[in-house]
Amino acid sequence: MTDQATPPEDRSAEDEYLPRRALLDQIDAAIEAGDAATLNTLLEPMHGADIADLIERLDPAKRRAFLALYSGEIDGEILSEIDEAIREEVIDQLPREVVAEAVREMDSDDVVDLVEDMDEPERQEILAALDATDRAAVQQSLAYPEYSAGRLMQSEVVTAPEHWTVGEAVAFLQSEEWLPEQFYHIVLVDPRFHPLGYVTLGRLLASSHATPLRDITEDSFRTISAFAEEADVAYVFNQYHLISAPVVDRDDRLVGIITIDDAMAVLDEEHEEDILRLAGVGDESHVTDGPLATARQRLPWLVVNLFTASLSAVVISMFENTIASLVALAALMPIVASTGGIAGTQSLAVAVRGLATRDLNRSNARRVVMRELLAGLLNGVGLALILGIAETLIFGDIRLGMVLAAAMIVNQIVAALGGVLVPLTLNKLGLDPALASGTFVTTMTDVMGFFAFLGLATIMLL
Amino acid sequence: MTDQATPPEDRSAEDEYLPRRALLDQIDAAIEAGDAATLNTLLEPMHGADIADLIERLDPAKRRAFLALYSGEIDGEILSEIDEAIREEVIDQLPREVVAEAVREMDSDDVVDLVEDMDEPERQEILAALDATDRAAVQQSLAYPEYSAGRLMQSEVVTAPEHWTVGEAVAFLQSEEWLPEQFYHIVLVDPRFHPLGYVTLGRLLASSHATPLRDITEDSFRTISAFAEEADVAYVFNQYHLISAPVVDRDDRLVGIITIDDAMAVLDEEHEEDILRLAGVGDESHVTDGPLATARQRLPWLVVNLFTASLSAVVISMFENTIASLVALAALMPIVASTGGIAGTQSLAVAVRGLATRDLNRSNARRVVMRELLAGLLNGVGLALILGIAETLIFGDIRLGMVLAAAMIVNQIVAALGGVLVPLTLNKLGLDPALASGTFVTTMTDVMGFFAFLGLATIMLL
Repeated sequence: MTDQATPPEDRSAEDEYLPRRALLDQIDAAIEAGDAATLNTLLEPMHGADIADLIERLDPAKRRAFLALYSGEIDGEILSEIDEAIREEVIDQLPREVVAEAVREMDSDDVVDLVEDMDEPERQEILAALDATDRAAVQQSLAYPEYSAGRLMQSEVVTAPEHWTVGEAVAFLQSEEWLPEQFYHIVLVDPRFHPLGYVTLGRLLASSHATPLRDITEDSFRTISAFAEEADVAYVFNQYHLISAPVVDRDDRLVGIITIDDAMAVLDEEHEEDILRLAGVGDESHVTDGPLATARQRLPWLVVNLFTASLSAVVISMFENTIASLVALAALMPIVASTGGIAGTQSLAVAVRGLATRDLNRSNARRVVMRELLAGLLNGVGLALILGIAETLIFGDIRLGMVLAAAMIVNQIVAALGGVLVPLTLNKLGLDPALASGTFVTTMTDVMGFFAFLGLATIMLL
Repeated sequence: MTDQATPPEDRSAEDEYLPRRALLDQIDAAIEAGDAATLNTLLEPMHGADIADLIERLDPAKRRAFLALYSGEIDGEILSEIDEAIREEVIDQLPREVVAEAVREMDSDDVVDLVEDMDEPERQEILAALDATDRAAVQQSLAYPEYSAGRLMQSEVVTAPEHWTVGEAVAFLQSEEWLPEQFYHIVLVDPRFHPLGYVTLGRLLASSHATPLRDITEDSFRTISAFAEEADVAYVFNQYHLISAPVVDRDDRLVGIITIDDAMAVLDEEHEEDILRLAGVGDESHVTDGPLATARQRLPWLVVNLFTASLSAVVISMFENTIASLVALAALMPIVASTGGIAGTQSLAVAVRGLATRDLNRSNARRVVMRELLAGLLNGVGLALILGIAETLIFGDIRLGMVLAAAMIVNQIVAALGGVLVPLTLNKLGLDPALASGTFVTTMTDVMGFFAFLGLATIMLL
């Protein structure tokens, strides 16, 4: 039962949180031999989340062979852990009764996650496998908007009337036949099912039976609107160290509960979205995607960049005469543009992250913009000194060094400001500050880099 | 007590998870008026984490004024929530007895977090405020490496001998004077203090008193080595939906416990590190930093980029004769380089994220590299068609269009491959795959973009 992580000095070169290579080879062999019994034995000790990862990492042909052998063992845990990108494909290959049985085992929030992206006929088929109460719970969740707390919550909540004592609550828990797999609090409700506070199970266990529940409620209690965005839910859990939080409808009535493990999963997805969007990749991107899907996700921003890069070409072509009379300029101009691109990316990453954690907000936006302006100026001067001196020494032309230096200062300031102003503006417009900021900012730094350098060169050198 | 998040339709333009602007104005006024009583009243309903954020967002002069008025109210919760970047500055401005009192309230893991970056004399001063047991717990944690599970754990663990029944455990909890603020499991240990399993408090409450604890342990139980890296701890919690996990020493003896809220905080920090490192910013970067600190964090990679960008300049200068005979090439060359930079960034972001989630690992690395190669080829061809046709139409020179198209295909493949091979290589070398990958990859795509375009132009056009 103990699954002990070995200390580092015992570690082989293998990652201890991945299945051993030898095990993977055995699994491969069992799939190829069509040996279901061996496959079951090999996978028996594995956690559902690891089996789901294994399924994701198989190539499509091998995955089909695997599912043909192992479909009877796919349970609710494995199914809910499989990445959305391939889950429908997996479900299509499973016998209907296996899917039905798996779905019946799941918590309502996992069923919601499973069916929310399905077409109506498939969704109805899955829901038909549930008993009436569970189906009603799932349908209630689905009535809330996508990416809302209502979709994230599970409807199974342990509640107690506000006037109960510890003894009454304990007796209730002892007599109750059905309790959620995981619960950490008892939510106190009034007769109209408004949540009033909660009691941790630890507090309950440590208190005498005569203690009124309302005397041992937690200060950290806060409810979440079923309409709140899931990103805000993750923020609230992380900010206030919540373990679970009751979800309420518009009338402030309890409709479900969200636990921290789901909030952590959302936080992780939000991170993925940030990092992929900043890089101009569709956030539905997965390591399991094939080359065609991968190409398709990335092409849109590449085409956009083709057009924005053409802006640089237009700017440069304005200075063709300048370049013709001093071809060395063509070689030097990418230095100013590229260093500006890096500075813009730096400023952008800090701003996007700051907006995500709310460390950057209206109360300090002005100060942060000023900070970026000054930091851009400082680094511009520093880089200008290095570059100007180096190029003067190499080309023996102090005027060329001065042009490079001046263009560098201008572009570093543009980069630092653009990096913070673009995401702030997107945020103010209600858009995701990470969305395509990278393309905007590097276009700005490219165009400005070429323009400042070639413009100054035209004025000062010709 | 209820702190209800309002549903979206009631929201003003303000972010509901930030203090209201009117409140901030009142706080500002109270600080300026030196009115401690009003300040206390205004902050009284606020959560410690929000007060800490408020302190972080004040500019340094106002922060000093604030602390002079409010220092008596700074407790352990506020102090442990203040960002490391300014925590030492805050501590220096607080009366010693306030710090001592705050530290005595903290859990051992928060004290470790507070003192681990301090110099020895300051650390000793803080530790002196603790009673002997707490001090020993903190010192035990500090003996483990930085960023290890041992630093993250708290030593306060609720344990029970493996042979106990539910009734014995409940009686123990009732009689125990001291219990941790938050605990969710009872860890079963053998006489040598090896953890053998755990029981959730929900299960304990729902079971009859005669039930042996070992009959109701959780399947999800796994221990974590005190030497495990904290990033791996976050991965394990997220992968297996753990709520808490016992930490063991080299002899497999229980030394502490990690709870999911700490793992969630680590996950969040790891993401910050990824996003900032990918962008070439020091990961000790904060929105609260001043311009000088900001400039200093960013300068190193800018200087590195100055040198790598000079590589592009060297490549271009090899083709000065080509450019001199057809200056339009100078205008067009950034298109190939810049689109390659975007493609490299896309491939890189997916790979870095895949390595962080272990979705990309040795079992599928080869397939992912092949996928990138093909995706790069596909997008290269797509972009080449658009660009080649457009430029042929504009310049009326089909050979120039073909050169652009061919260079685009080459550079898209280089970008896609570089984006995945650079982080894979860094990972294999035991380095952070996000570290400066961006600079490497854009250098590759710049150099290759200019080389392919100008080289092909030299062969085909002159």
